[in-house]
Amino acid sequence: MPQASRLNVIERRMSRFLKEPPSVRTAAGVIVTATTVVVVAGGVLMRLLDHGEYADIWVGMWWALQTVTTVGYGDVTPKEPSGRIIATFVMLQGIAFLAITTAAITSTFVARASKERERARDADEDDAELRIEAKLVGIDQRLDRLEKLLQAREPGIG
Amino acid sequence: MPQASRLNVIERRMSRFLKEPPSVRTAAGVIVTATTVVVVAGGVLMRLLDHGEYADIWVGMWWALQTVTTVGYGDVTPKEPSGRIIATFVMLQGIAFLAITTAAITSTFVARASKERERARDADEDDAELRIEAKLVGIDQRLDRLEKLLQAREPGIG
Amino acid sequence: MPQASRLNVIERRMSRFLKEPPSVRTAAGVIVTATTVVVVAGGVLMRLLDHGEYADIWVGMWWALQTVTTVGYGDVTPKEPSGRIIATFVMLQGIAFLAITTAAITSTFVARASKERERARDADEDDAELRIEAKLVGIDQRLDRLEKLLQAREPGIG
Amino acid sequence: MPQASRLNVIERRMSRFLKEPPSVRTAAGVIVTATTVVVVAGGVLMRLLDHGEYADIWVGMWWALQTVTTVGYGDVTPKEPSGRIIATFVMLQGIAFLAITTAAITSTFVARASKERERARDADEDDAELRIEAKLVGIDQRLDRLEKLLQAREPGIG
Repeated sequence: MPQASRLNVIERRMSRFLKEPPSVRTAAGVIVTATTVVVVAGGVLMRLLDHGEYADIWVGMWWALQTVTTVGYGDVTPKEPSGRIIATFVMLQGIAFLAITTAAITSTFVARASKERERARDADEDDAELRIEAKLVGIDQRLDRLEKLLQAREPGIG
Repeated sequence: MPQASRLNVIERRMSRFLKEPPSVRTAAGVIVTATTVVVVAGGVLMRLLDHGEYADIWVGMWWALQTVTTVGYGDVTPKEPSGRIIATFVMLQGIAFLAITTAAITSTFVARASKERERARDADEDDAELRIEAKLVGIDQRLDRLEKLLQAREPGIG
Repeated sequence: MPQASRLNVIERRMSRFLKEPPSVRTAAGVIVTATTVVVVAGGVLMRLLDHGEYADIWVGMWWALQTVTTVGYGDVTPKEPSGRIIATFVMLQGIAFLAITTAAITSTFVARASKERERARDADEDDAELRIEAKLVGIDQRLDRLEKLLQAREPGIG
Repeated sequence: MPQASRLNVIERRMSRFLKEPPSVRTAAGVIVTATTVVVVAGGVLMRLLDHGEYADIWVGMWWALQTVTTVGYGDVTPKEPSGRIIATFVMLQGIAFLAITTAAITSTFVARASKERERARDADEDDAELRIEAKLVGIDQRLDRLEKLLQAREPGIG
């Protein structure tokens, strides 16, 4: 059951990933590099393992690219069990590629919109704080006058 | 119309899901497990229900995996109505797998970015609160001095 | 150029959608219903327009379902221009289905995480406000004592 | 290795994109336009470069549309290396189309939910600020009375 064990590996990696998420920039870089490596390695391995179907490594890479983008024309497909195990990895890499690319773009859109809303809210809040601080300064000055009034009246005590 | 009724089930489940969303970690674990089960069960059922096309359960699972990842080469496809009903479930599981995986990764990216922005805003706000509290302490001390001034002058009253 | 005009319709609808986004619950319900309608109508239309390839409406709906989920085995495909124009709509509905389903799930995950963070921040902020209000109450009581001290001394003026 | 160099271009563009994200409305417009252009240009180029497989530009555009939506029936596929290089661009455009469409819709859902939560929190916070400001006004009025009391008693000093 190669699929099940592979999915189990994915589950462990995803769990670790969710605990310590990398920065969006790092994740985007890693997924593009990993996908490139999977396409090239998948193409080469298919040529080695599934001789009959894949005439050269370019056919292998053509197959890997349509698999990793989940297009899957089916004009070339692995026939040997070994080739199908490789294909499992390439397919799951395709899901990771799409999911992480979408997540990276979504999070930049969300961050941009949040920043704009927060700027407006922070300005409102700063206004409220400034009004409170201005009132406190006024109260302090009034107290200063009161204190001077009392001290001036009875200088021996102040 | 098996598709319509199936979609109706999906609609009810999605509605309940949107009302009480599970934690991201739970959702990620559940979708990976459910997808593994669907691939294995789909492969076994295809071998049982669609004999002609599926030589053994490995061919069934190979088909289920390319279906659940939406790659869909089409080198093996169900020919019987029963097989196509099973396929409907596997295809919709594929959409759920991709959507929930993407959602889980996106929400960790968004949370990370939000936390960083909030840390900066909280520091700003804490500064404002500390300034206000410091002014209040100053006002309180001044009032303490005033009260002592007045009591010292007329001890019989204070 | 049916694709281009269709994409133009999509562009206008998306622009309007982005201006007045529906609630997530509404959007999820609408997309599931719309996708069901597109699968059923697509299947019926294919049987009517592309006779040779589609033996009955069940074959049409089988094709529509694998198209709307972007699986696309290719075991049955439209051969007539009219069928391919229908297919364009079904394919684009598939993209909308996946995108809106993913968006609905993502936004519930993001909202859940935000609510938890906000609860913690609100508690912090409430603490600061309570401290400030307690200090203000203390200042007010002290002023009350001062006022009484002054009035007690010269009752004719107060 | 056309795929690798292409992915490298994607990586540079994505890195720049993540640094200066465009507005969601702009991004949605650009991706729909770019995808339309890629489908039309891909269809024309396929007819020119891969003569045997593509009978006319309509077949080319039919292929481009099923590729850009990642459906990929495989009823027509490029056979020449030049056609497969074009296909690489169309496939990657498909990933960008799906990712950016999903991101645009997700960010409008997230923004809508955030705005509703923020409205409730802002109302809470405004309440707290109003209570604090009301207490400060009360304190200020009391100080005004105190100051008048003191000045009335000894008009020569005040």
